[in-house]
Amino acid sequence: MSKQNLKPPRGTRDLFPEDQRFREWLFGHFREVAARFGFEEVDAPIVEHAELFMRKAGEEIVDQLYHFELHGRHLALRPEMTPSIARMVMARAGGLRMPLRWFTVTQNWRYERMTRGRKREHYQWNMDIYGEPGVTAEAELIAAITSLVDAVGLERDHVKIRINSRSLLEASLRAGVLKDRPEAFEPLCVVIDKIDKVGAETVTDMLVDPAGAVGLDAASARDVVAMLEVKNLEDAVAAAPSDSTAGSDLLRLWSLLAAYGVDDRVVFDASVVRGLAYYAGIVFEAFDTRGALRAICGGGRYDRLTEALGGPSIPAAGFGFGDVVIAELLSDMGKLPELAREVDDVVFAFEEAQRPAAIEVATRLRAAGHRVELVLGTPKLKRVISDADKDGVATLWLLGPDEVERGVVMRRRLETGEQSEVALAGFDPEPRA
Amino acid sequence: MSKQNLKPPRGTRDLFPEDQRFREWLFGHFREVAARFGFEEVDAPIVEHAELFMRKAGEEIVDQLYHFELHGRHLALRPEMTPSIARMVMARAGGLRMPLRWFTVTQNWRYERMTRGRKREHYQWNMDIYGEPGVTAEAELIAAITSLVDAVGLERDHVKIRINSRSLLEASLRAGVLKDRPEAFEPLCVVIDKIDKVGAETVTDMLVDPAGAVGLDAASARDVVAMLEVKNLEDAVAAAPSDSTAGSDLLRLWSLLAAYGVDDRVVFDASVVRGLAYYAGIVFEAFDTRGALRAICGGGRYDRLTEALGGPSIPAAGFGFGDVVIAELLSDMGKLPELAREVDDVVFAFEEAQRPAAIEVATRLRAAGHRVELVLGTPKLKRVISDADKDGVATLWLLGPDEVERGVVMRRRLETGEQSEVALAGFDPEPRA
Repeated sequence: MSKQNLKPPRGTRDLFPEDQRFREWLFGHFREVAARFGFEEVDAPIVEHAELFMRKAGEEIVDQLYHFELHGRHLALRPEMTPSIARMVMARAGGLRMPLRWFTVTQNWRYERMTRGRKREHYQWNMDIYGEPGVTAEAELIAAITSLVDAVGLERDHVKIRINSRSLLEASLRAGVLKDRPEAFEPLCVVIDKIDKVGAETVTDMLVDPAGAVGLDAASARDVVAMLEVKNLEDAVAAAPSDSTAGSDLLRLWSLLAAYGVDDRVVFDASVVRGLAYYAGIVFEAFDTRGALRAICGGGRYDRLTEALGGPSIPAAGFGFGDVVIAELLSDMGKLPELAREVDDVVFAFEEAQRPAAIEVATRLRAAGHRVELVLGTPKLKRVISDADKDGVATLWLLGPDEVERGVVMRRRLETGEQSEVALAGFDPEPRA
Repeated sequence: MSKQNLKPPRGTRDLFPEDQRFREWLFGHFREVAARFGFEEVDAPIVEHAELFMRKAGEEIVDQLYHFELHGRHLALRPEMTPSIARMVMARAGGLRMPLRWFTVTQNWRYERMTRGRKREHYQWNMDIYGEPGVTAEAELIAAITSLVDAVGLERDHVKIRINSRSLLEASLRAGVLKDRPEAFEPLCVVIDKIDKVGAETVTDMLVDPAGAVGLDAASARDVVAMLEVKNLEDAVAAAPSDSTAGSDLLRLWSLLAAYGVDDRVVFDASVVRGLAYYAGIVFEAFDTRGALRAICGGGRYDRLTEALGGPSIPAAGFGFGDVVIAELLSDMGKLPELAREVDDVVFAFEEAQRPAAIEVATRLRAAGHRVELVLGTPKLKRVISDADKDGVATLWLLGPDEVERGVVMRRRLETGEQSEVALAGFDPEPRA
């Protein structure tokens, strides 16, 4: 057989033990924060019917779908979790107590050009609330994001959250340049979302592009882009049409965030619309305050998604928080945790004749909850000690012919070098702390 | 839009909160047992280059591959974890300290007809040891399986492990019916593996089938099947060719398993060969002693896999333990755990005016590690109490206009109905136990 390609497919990652320790550490924080907020974990298949993700709004996420025909079915690797959650909620609608609070920690796939903070697969922590129409839901979600930032050891000013209201923008545009074409709003948001990446001029050109989905005249496009420059909540609220509740929702959200003690960690930013077509209402994204990285997480209200999937409308809000950008931010800030291998004890038989006794010692230690490496061959003692030292092992249990003959095991504390003999009969180690 | 299909693709599972709680419970035991045996967790992409899984041994697992062309690459959803682990070991060969002990808890995909205990996706706990040629590795793996059986609450006699040696069979056949065609051994094992499912007669026919990969004459096929009937270790060892170490390896494995205290939990069974072509040496599978379910887990030695992938040979042994069959066995035995939702506290503001105070109470409880549901709307108190009772919540924190005016929160212990007021100023709840 020809030599196998030893790399994983481009844009994907192998996780060696040190990588996996970091992942488990991060996922542990995701799960702990979600639990403190009373959220329950759910999961759905990574392969779904492709139609679940197909929308006609010009979104990158649809263009980048990993999809394929297999046994007569059109399947896709999920690019995001939100549609699967919506499907699950719809499948049990009526049988679920609302409001429901669900979270997921799942892998998503997007076939795209790779840049810093973006691979073809990544994991995402999602928190979603269904059945609550008020901004109390958004406030809870934003507070959870700040709790995660604190939990992983970042400082308060490392991350802030930009907040906007798509409804506010929508109300203004429907009263103005989109009066006759409300259906152009979703593709318009998809274009606007690129403004940080491509700049205001390119966005203006894209809004005008007659081959695009928006097709504004040049003056209207400039008006839209000017609206996005507003960075002051009061100005934005004052400019909103009087028949919209979007302004008062934003003000209420700010007062709730003050009660959570996180109003200093959010900023209003009219240019935030998020790139997913289904958002409506409040949208938000967490960002690295240095501006060096992509958005850390993004979310908002998406009350119309279940309707778009052919069901009744159910109020919903949520966010997705990836594992890649936060890891880069932790690295940039010198906040990556040091996570050593966790082995408490190493048990070593000098010769095969002492192996049964070594197995007994290991078995008892394990029954007491210890993490135990039983040396499987018969390497030199020197090497066993040096490996155990590298792994930060606390205790070495040595069994030579002399020990076994006298019915004892030699216990060596690696930190102090202290050695003492322990009787094998009735050996009953302390439970792991 | 037409109504979305609300079911996940056939053969896959949605995990609602109660399903996910079971999964986390089971995976927690997988991880805990692996940690006690000193294994480190790793992971690899669920999508791999398809060639990694393509072998020419007539294995079901290859026929059932989920594979597809995408952007000019031939990709596949992994059907098993072993080849990815081998790829990772090979990619870092030389840089890894041997023997290495890795485990994974990952999802695998197989496109096949569904029967009890078999879906198109399942999770599998894998434990693998690389770099140890002796049966001390197999003994450690088998002991870990028995530890898992104990950890999930099954009884000692619910599960046993069948053990055989492919080398023993191979040595006998190469000295006999396969003398001139050693390459037929792997496809022969793939056929033999079906004996439990299809019976001895069909297996004999398949071994004879001139269109098949084995093509024995009828008498040889009957001889092979007769060899599989041996259930006694001593008889098998006695029948082995004298130039093979397979018999002494089996005897040594038994003596090691006695030291682990699990020799009563294993049986010799010459018909066990496992359906994967890469196994060589000891093979084993855990089974439900009632005989009602498929194999609970399977594994063995596969020293030749890295060679088959184009690298140097590295001694290796491991097993895969699925999440589906063990769940059915737990269910059949009445051993499924009762896993309630974990919410410690519910915080409820009677009116919007008390919401900021409710948010403060929830925030402080969360800072102390509590799992807290903050009621997001303003339902009736009666409903809040009834929901909290159903969830087994310990404490309800009530904030009406009267409480907030007096600067207190009403604490109600749901088990006893006991109520008392707690001052909001300096509210500093006990850390979660």
